Amino acid sequence: MATPMPQPEQSEPDARRYAKLPDPFPIWRGGVLHGAQIAYETWGRLNAARDNAVLLFTGLSPSAHAASSPQDPRDGWWQRMLGRGLAIDTGQLFVICVNSLGSCFGSTGPASIDPATGRPYRLAFPDLSVEDIARAGYEVARSLGIQRVDTVMGPSLGGMVVLAYAALFPGTARRLVSISGTLAASPFAIALRSIQREAITGDPDWRHGNYTADRLPRTGMSLARKLGTVTYRSAAEWQQRFDRQPVRPDLKRNEPFAPEFSVQGYLESQARRWINAFDANCYLYLSRAMDRFDLGAHGDPAAVLGKAGLEQALVIGVESDLLFSIAEQRAVAQALQAGGAATRFAPLQCIEGHDSFLIDIERFGRELRAFLG
Amino acid sequence: MATPMPQPEQSEPDARRYAKLPDPFPIWRGGVLHGAQIAYETWGRLNAARDNAVLLFTGLSPSAHAASSPQDPRDGWWQRMLGRGLAIDTGQLFVICVNSLGSCFGSTGPASIDPATGRPYRLAFPDLSVEDIARAGYEVARSLGIQRVDTVMGPSLGGMVVLAYAALFPGTARRLVSISGTLAASPFAIALRSIQREAITGDPDWRHGNYTADRLPRTGMSLARKLGTVTYRSAAEWQQRFDRQPVRPDLKRNEPFAPEFSVQGYLESQARRWINAFDANCYLYLSRAMDRFDLGAHGDPAAVLGKAGLEQALVIGVESDLLFSIAEQRAVAQALQAGGAATRFAPLQCIEGHDSFLIDIERFGRELRAFLG
Repeated sequence: MATPMPQPEQSEPDARRYAKLPDPFPIWRGGVLHGAQIAYETWGRLNAARDNAVLLFTGLSPSAHAASSPQDPRDGWWQRMLGRGLAIDTGQLFVICVNSLGSCFGSTGPASIDPATGRPYRLAFPDLSVEDIARAGYEVARSLGIQRVDTVMGPSLGGMVVLAYAALFPGTARRLVSISGTLAASPFAIALRSIQREAITGDPDWRHGNYTADRLPRTGMSLARKLGTVTYRSAAEWQQRFDRQPVRPDLKRNEPFAPEFSVQGYLESQARRWINAFDANCYLYLSRAMDRFDLGAHGDPAAVLGKAGLEQALVIGVESDLLFSIAEQRAVAQALQAGGAATRFAPLQCIEGHDSFLIDIERFGRELRAFLG
Repeated sequence: MATPMPQPEQSEPDARRYAKLPDPFPIWRGGVLHGAQIAYETWGRLNAARDNAVLLFTGLSPSAHAASSPQDPRDGWWQRMLGRGLAIDTGQLFVICVNSLGSCFGSTGPASIDPATGRPYRLAFPDLSVEDIARAGYEVARSLGIQRVDTVMGPSLGGMVVLAYAALFPGTARRLVSISGTLAASPFAIALRSIQREAITGDPDWRHGNYTADRLPRTGMSLARKLGTVTYRSAAEWQQRFDRQPVRPDLKRNEPFAPEFSVQGYLESQARRWINAFDANCYLYLSRAMDRFDLGAHGDPAAVLGKAGLEQALVIGVESDLLFSIAEQRAVAQALQAGGAATRFAPLQCIEGHDSFLIDIERFGRELRAFLG
């Protein structure tokens, strides 16, 4: 049976490196992984003291390719933020971006081969938590000989991961940056993510996780991505951007209730790209891990973060974020401050919603540059 | 073939009356209906001058049963708002609530029998617009001998309908109340509604509209309703109401990615009730009609509303509304004011989002009582 994850062509540029995880690798909610690995990319140079590393976790769907490099000159997901002379200045810092455990861009996840069976894990993959993603990133840093990172940083899911990292590995990060994250998934975000998951599990082609490459659960994946695209943005931005313009002629379809407006065409093209790039089971595991995240499971958040030994923290959030409200950002900052880290809270007025960190490079870059510089 | 719409038992109380629409009944985007009817309910008494009528249009899914009456003592969807001595005082006013054309609670819609074929219209129903719903309500008032209503009123979809009514039938309403409506559907709301429709049309059991009563497109309908439930409320309300409480034991399911949190159980129970109450094709038609609504199609909104001859208007909106933003409410009020109606704009601080008019009876009731009284 073909693995459902599209494999890159041999000829494509590839800057990924791979860290073998300890075998067995313990899973937070029980069980272990054997022979697991994490794909990562790096920029800049680790200095002799090994104390200039930024460990960067991603949101739910990106790969480790945050920016271009000689090995892979394609633009990354944070291309204008990360590089020599940019806000995350790789002239000074050694940046490691990890593809999350459970994802499908080189790290072990539900689409990977289970060494015990020789077939993809699919739903036999263990019960993934944000804590497992944090542990896997920690092991990548260790594999590079780094005992303590200068900064652990992440947006969205990554903003949860950095808090789990601080809880699990006290003393191993000097600074922390949480971008549009939260102390615990909110019921509103849980509701939206659970609808996305149900769109996939309700698609007959999902086949309880046993879909094939030639018959992916496209309808469910498309719905999930479209809903994601909506909730990652804001009404105000779309009013400016799309208003009530008609759909592009090439996205019209001769069928009942076909797209009529430009915004529908935009959702459609986003969804088509994503269906071919992301594995459905990996999405389900990562999405559920986000719902389950609650720093409170480790104890009182301020006490947990107090033990982490952070010197400084930066919390950036966005007023227009539907999924991770500005109140949640404030709560993260308050817990870090109460835990003893010198914390800056930056509530930004961007109109691009949850995804603002990908778009409003100017506002986010200003905060990151000032904090890291 | 059974009609997909559940029929009430003979023994159930029923306060509905029916108005025959003119035959042929012209459809805004082309075509006609033959033998069409509108179900409506009334409260209070029409006075001798026939000038105390409130014509009430509904949101997308309610029936005409806005409140109890001797003929049907069950609670209605606006039970605490409408009645003798309540904010909409049926001791003074004669209230007519109409089930929208295109809906499935007694009014003609896609689930009704097409007299030309003897079978349900399904997708052969003509291309419904908000303007058609307005015209059908206008005909109900005419059938009762009312030339000019005291007030035309509606929330949500109804807030669009009252504007279409004002545009199409100048001089036939003295006052207008728009609750959480808009001058034109926004791209953000279009995006969310189009995802809901795609959830239904992507369900194999939808069968291009030819589903059967014993095999409804339950998966798609469930997804559509769950997404509706989320977008009708707000993150702040759900934080208070659900937080991260676990799902009720009776809503747990032994299957992959089953509900874990209370909010998921709430979505599930809301969806189950709705699937058995609403017709999928009717939903699709009404939802698309909302996307297409643009008062600007009738001319400059202020000029159109100026010709309507309204004396007074009340526009109520809610700051936490995700679907019909407070900016849209302000724009409705500005257009009415510019058109010459003495307009009160009431932006309310409710946390229940778009559905606040159903829940925060105190705040909404205060505004309605002051305006109508």
